[in-house]
Amino acid sequence: MSVLAGFVAALADGDLELVDLTAPLSADTPVLRLPDQFGQAHRFSLSEISRYDERGPAWYWNNIATSEHTGTHLDAPVHWVTGRTGGDVAEIPVRRLVRPAAVLDLSAEAAADPDFLLQTGHVQGWIDRHGPLPAGGWLLYRTGWDARSGDEEQFLNGGRTPGIAPECARWLAEQTPILGVGVETVGTDAGAAHGFDPPFPCHHELLGRGRYGLTQLRNLAHLPPTGSVLIVAPLPIVNGSGSPCRVLALVPR
Amino acid sequence: MSVLAGFVAALADGDLELVDLTAPLSADTPVLRLPDQFGQAHRFSLSEISRYDERGPAWYWNNIATSEHTGTHLDAPVHWVTGRTGGDVAEIPVRRLVRPAAVLDLSAEAAADPDFLLQTGHVQGWIDRHGPLPAGGWLLYRTGWDARSGDEEQFLNGGRTPGIAPECARWLAEQTPILGVGVETVGTDAGAAHGFDPPFPCHHELLGRGRYGLTQLRNLAHLPPTGSVLIVAPLPIVNGSGSPCRVLALVPR
Repeated sequence: MSVLAGFVAALADGDLELVDLTAPLSADTPVLRLPDQFGQAHRFSLSEISRYDERGPAWYWNNIATSEHTGTHLDAPVHWVTGRTGGDVAEIPVRRLVRPAAVLDLSAEAAADPDFLLQTGHVQGWIDRHGPLPAGGWLLYRTGWDARSGDEEQFLNGGRTPGIAPECARWLAEQTPILGVGVETVGTDAGAAHGFDPPFPCHHELLGRGRYGLTQLRNLAHLPPTGSVLIVAPLPIVNGSGSPCRVLALVPR
Repeated sequence: MSVLAGFVAALADGDLELVDLTAPLSADTPVLRLPDQFGQAHRFSLSEISRYDERGPAWYWNNIATSEHTGTHLDAPVHWVTGRTGGDVAEIPVRRLVRPAAVLDLSAEAAADPDFLLQTGHVQGWIDRHGPLPAGGWLLYRTGWDARSGDEEQFLNGGRTPGIAPECARWLAEQTPILGVGVETVGTDAGAAHGFDPPFPCHHELLGRGRYGLTQLRNLAHLPPTGSVLIVAPLPIVNGSGSPCRVLALVPR
């Protein structure tokens, strides 16, 4: 049996499970809020074109307003000034869209401290237990924040949300072979990251080195520390700084 | 080696290739035009929120306006009145998003006749040569129309575009085990299908039986008749009649 036939059979038999890491998209999807002087991302909204009526007797459909960074989404390098020559979301090579994932669970730490920051030592401890981070794969950083995603106030938590320490973001970008970082929070950086040095270090360091960010993931609790594969499917928006994104995980059972 | 480790190794070695079947999304993406009395789908457009300027000193990003059915997209059952109880795009079971594909190449016929319609006999002839259609998988119907997708006038062709004959659409929905039909044209039905009995038979029959449609695919020429696997990644739009969709194919080399 070929690799692909074995893959299809394993999916059919349940030896391989597809887990949806994507938050549903609706007007209730939490959206990042920046200080008033800055431009803001649109909430997700639908505008009905027709619904089996005089506007379209046999069909129902909607127009959409949203932003590239609303809901579960991917940050492309060009999203950040440090990555301005690093490519837009349509330029991501297709072979990078199916890649292994490492899952680091810091949900207990984030439950105890909403300002919790991932440090290099946490990642090095994970590597000691599980082996190296996957070359060209994802580091998924679990904080348990997906449990709050049904309530925007709890999800944004007055700007107190966990993230990654500046030195850890720099170390991940400079010293590890990862494709990018995926998180459960509204963005890859901590709620307090506007005051860090540099500000928004995860964006600054990772996008500045051609890596990617994935946000507002859910169901990371269903993934093992190693051995799962991520399917990351942004829309190929020409000149897009990012895109709403379906993210699925292939998980052995 | 586990099935998933073998899968990852085959992707890394090039024994398994990822082919992007998705059209790039921009203001130039062709959009269906209905008669003036009906509601219309929005073109895709970006509206800049900031670009490393006073609206956002370190970041570039955009708001988006589009429709559920602009560019490469998926039609959910609820899109059609016959499928109104068949589910929205967010309700598609995740296990259906990675499924085998059969590719029927009628590009020579469509090049000779832009009003070409797929008949049951064409599909039965394919089955005689290649075996049964994949249960729970896709029928991809190649017409060569993707070569026109860079030019909206050529792509829409004054309403003369290939499709599927009413009796074939009914037969596919009633007598075959496919998950849905994928096409290269602006919709799954022929340009002349408003005058068919029933009108828009592909929508009427397939969505009415809980199947799906995929449109504006490209690169089907790079897929074998059998043996490839489709990754179909619509956004999980709550109450969505469909969604812009990244579509990738896993192809053995």
